[in-house]
Amino acid sequence: MEPEGDSLAGRTFKKGDSFILDFGGHRTGHLAFRLETVGREPDAPARLRLTFGEVPSDVAEPLYPYNGMLSSAWLPDEIVNIDYLPQAVQLPRRYAFRYVKVEVIDTSSGFSIRFEDVKAIGLTSAKAAPAPLPPKYSDLARRIDAVALATLRDCMQTTFEDGPRRDQRLWVGDLRLQALANYATFKQNDLVKRCLYLFAAYRRQDGLVAACVYEKPKARYGGIHIVDYAALFNVALADYLEATGDEATARELWPVAKRQLEIIGQRINTDGRYVDPGNVWIFIDWAPDLHKDAAVQGLLVFAHKRTLDLARKLGVQAEVADYPALIERMTKAARGYWDASAKAFVSGPNRQVSWASQAWMAIGGVMPARDCATALKTAFSRADAVKPVTPYLYHYMVEAMLDSGLDKEAKALVESYWGGMVKAGADTFWEVYDPAKPLSSPYGDIHINSYCHAWSCTPTYFYRARGMVA
Amino acid sequence: MEPEGDSLAGRTFKKGDSFILDFGGHRTGHLAFRLETVGREPDAPARLRLTFGEVPSDVAEPLYPYNGMLSSAWLPDEIVNIDYLPQAVQLPRRYAFRYVKVEVIDTSSGFSIRFEDVKAIGLTSAKAAPAPLPPKYSDLARRIDAVALATLRDCMQTTFEDGPRRDQRLWVGDLRLQALANYATFKQNDLVKRCLYLFAAYRRQDGLVAACVYEKPKARYGGIHIVDYAALFNVALADYLEATGDEATARELWPVAKRQLEIIGQRINTDGRYVDPGNVWIFIDWAPDLHKDAAVQGLLVFAHKRTLDLARKLGVQAEVADYPALIERMTKAARGYWDASAKAFVSGPNRQVSWASQAWMAIGGVMPARDCATALKTAFSRADAVKPVTPYLYHYMVEAMLDSGLDKEAKALVESYWGGMVKAGADTFWEVYDPAKPLSSPYGDIHINSYCHAWSCTPTYFYRARGMVA
Repeated sequence: MEPEGDSLAGRTFKKGDSFILDFGGHRTGHLAFRLETVGREPDAPARLRLTFGEVPSDVAEPLYPYNGMLSSAWLPDEIVNIDYLPQAVQLPRRYAFRYVKVEVIDTSSGFSIRFEDVKAIGLTSAKAAPAPLPPKYSDLARRIDAVALATLRDCMQTTFEDGPRRDQRLWVGDLRLQALANYATFKQNDLVKRCLYLFAAYRRQDGLVAACVYEKPKARYGGIHIVDYAALFNVALADYLEATGDEATARELWPVAKRQLEIIGQRINTDGRYVDPGNVWIFIDWAPDLHKDAAVQGLLVFAHKRTLDLARKLGVQAEVADYPALIERMTKAARGYWDASAKAFVSGPNRQVSWASQAWMAIGGVMPARDCATALKTAFSRADAVKPVTPYLYHYMVEAMLDSGLDKEAKALVESYWGGMVKAGADTFWEVYDPAKPLSSPYGDIHINSYCHAWSCTPTYFYRARGMVA
Repeated sequence: MEPEGDSLAGRTFKKGDSFILDFGGHRTGHLAFRLETVGREPDAPARLRLTFGEVPSDVAEPLYPYNGMLSSAWLPDEIVNIDYLPQAVQLPRRYAFRYVKVEVIDTSSGFSIRFEDVKAIGLTSAKAAPAPLPPKYSDLARRIDAVALATLRDCMQTTFEDGPRRDQRLWVGDLRLQALANYATFKQNDLVKRCLYLFAAYRRQDGLVAACVYEKPKARYGGIHIVDYAALFNVALADYLEATGDEATARELWPVAKRQLEIIGQRINTDGRYVDPGNVWIFIDWAPDLHKDAAVQGLLVFAHKRTLDLARKLGVQAEVADYPALIERMTKAARGYWDASAKAFVSGPNRQVSWASQAWMAIGGVMPARDCATALKTAFSRADAVKPVTPYLYHYMVEAMLDSGLDKEAKALVESYWGGMVKAGADTFWEVYDPAKPLSSPYGDIHINSYCHAWSCTPTYFYRARGMVA
């Protein structure tokens, strides 16, 4: 690895040569350099292969053969031809990278090339970074916070992207977590507002919010729906009003929020239980064996409560006069998932105990905090409990712990989970991190994983907004 | 092969699919298309491999493994990523092509792509094309003329390029032939003037004209010298004055012309013989076994005569008062290459008979036209005579035949040689064509050959300016 440009000074490269640059930190942005020549007048183009790495394995291991399920067009490599030399080169595409592997496919036998003024040009819509955590926090906590801030910064572009390397899309679930972290840090609140309006503008014909929207080449409907994400749109809107006091926006988007629960409510039976029709996507987490009935029940109780709260703040509670009774029925149905002997919420025919179920039931507040704390501790201590594989669900586990008075456990979980990524060298937090299987991918090939991912940026929120102790 | 866009209408392409477009004629320029999608909202970039073909073998045969001596960076293939779909795409690089092979490396499993409004955007600095040859010319002659015009048109950019596919450089030898064809057709005389000034501006320290100059990213010295090309600079300047009457330019560049023969003259001995020092490049042709002493002697006689003629037209013959005697000595030395028993000029210790030697001695007019005609016929009929491999030397063979009264033989040679390329399907004339070895390359791999090359454009000059008969 070559520290940023330094050791390239004076070095020349020919056909077959290669080197790896290390920019010392993660960037979303462009690569630029001046390509100079040594030897005869340059009499051919220079053809280069560039591989952009967020982590060392991206550039240290071959990307091919690629075995993943997602499009190989996302792999971060590129062949470029520079016709006229010497030349200042700025690659037009945007990449997410700390490392760049440069392979010289060919120049001509008559000349070599030199790379000068090699630069990573970072792009973000985040403004001034907040001060680091004060020294009363541990070194690890301070590092976790800094990495979380870098993650958020590099995902903040013209929307809150899920990840700058791949997808680059605005998803509801990611947006909610990024917005929470943003309110506590960069306070770029207009970006949250822009994203809320994008979701409101590009919905399904019946009004359901899409799980994601696309922004380029022009803003448009994302075509995918996730039940829990539609419900979380309302939570994100309620969060926004709380953080900004911007009633005008909340009022304008209120009908969208109301419509989400009308549509989802069609699948809540008279007993208050959400019945999974089997043909809709409930996300919660990528853990493959997770049974989701209990988790989504807890999540929907939470979404109804926050939506009712939003209605009250806007003075439109008359429009949702049925909510209090509905929430009561749903809460009762949620308690039906409780297994007193297991001291946990269970889901499905195999009475599965998972972190997801306990987390969302606790956040939904379907039982007293003390009982929810017991449930969380049960799941946390049982080896057979289904654990999360994404930082997204780890977030909700920590949120649930904080809601249930388990401050010490929450802190320990942040330090072991996000701290685990830090100890593994993370500059930004990852899309997927399973401490038991650190080289796993939900997509069949780790080279397609994102290593800067929106939904893993919330430790800074816990430290700065939720009073997580030093 | 798909005729220009037509049969793409309504067809969709996925990972692994490919097709070949045929634009029906050669272009120097850009490729543009609109990339539309079918299926789910496009959730990944499209990665395409494009291969640009001047001739079918460029796109029908794999380019790799590549065995040529020239840089593989010239191979006309390209991998492009189109991030945001749908998208209007215009590839930034310029290519030389009639055919384009498009391979879809990947999209995503969710969508296919369609190509709409596929366009080749031709670039040339040639203006209105002259009328085709009249019907009194044979179909073959008319076709040869049209292909020569297309060749010249596609090489006429901001300079007279040697070939738009590769090199893309301005060479003296190519310039002279393109300028001759241009005076008889497009009459874009300012482009010739620009090229003459480029050569004058970027010379070796002692004033020797470079064999080529570069124009991009900025005009600069080419670093390569060819004895015959430096001498032909003078011929090109004399041609320019004759064609345009632009005395001001000829006068300004006269010192450059004079300097060429001063430098080259240092190697002409007291007997008038040019002595090859062995460490300079004499081009004449790519034929590997060619002995060049005789040819370069004839060429230099010609260059001195034309330079003297130029001096007279400019009224500066006093500056070259030694030329008449020098030309006489050189002519006498040239006659020393004559072998009376062979009825041909011979070169080298093996007394080699080549087309090159006879052609340049004839053009130099070192013997009466009748004897030169005999020499040309000798070479033409002897199986062991070294033949040209480039259209460049074929041009000078035809020029020599016309100079020597062999009009019928000249016409037959144009029709068999350039006509051979036409019959092989040429849309533009090639850099290299050896009828005996049509798949040969001077560079070790035919995929690096150019199939639109400046020095093969002169049949139109023979028909239109040299009175080649119908």
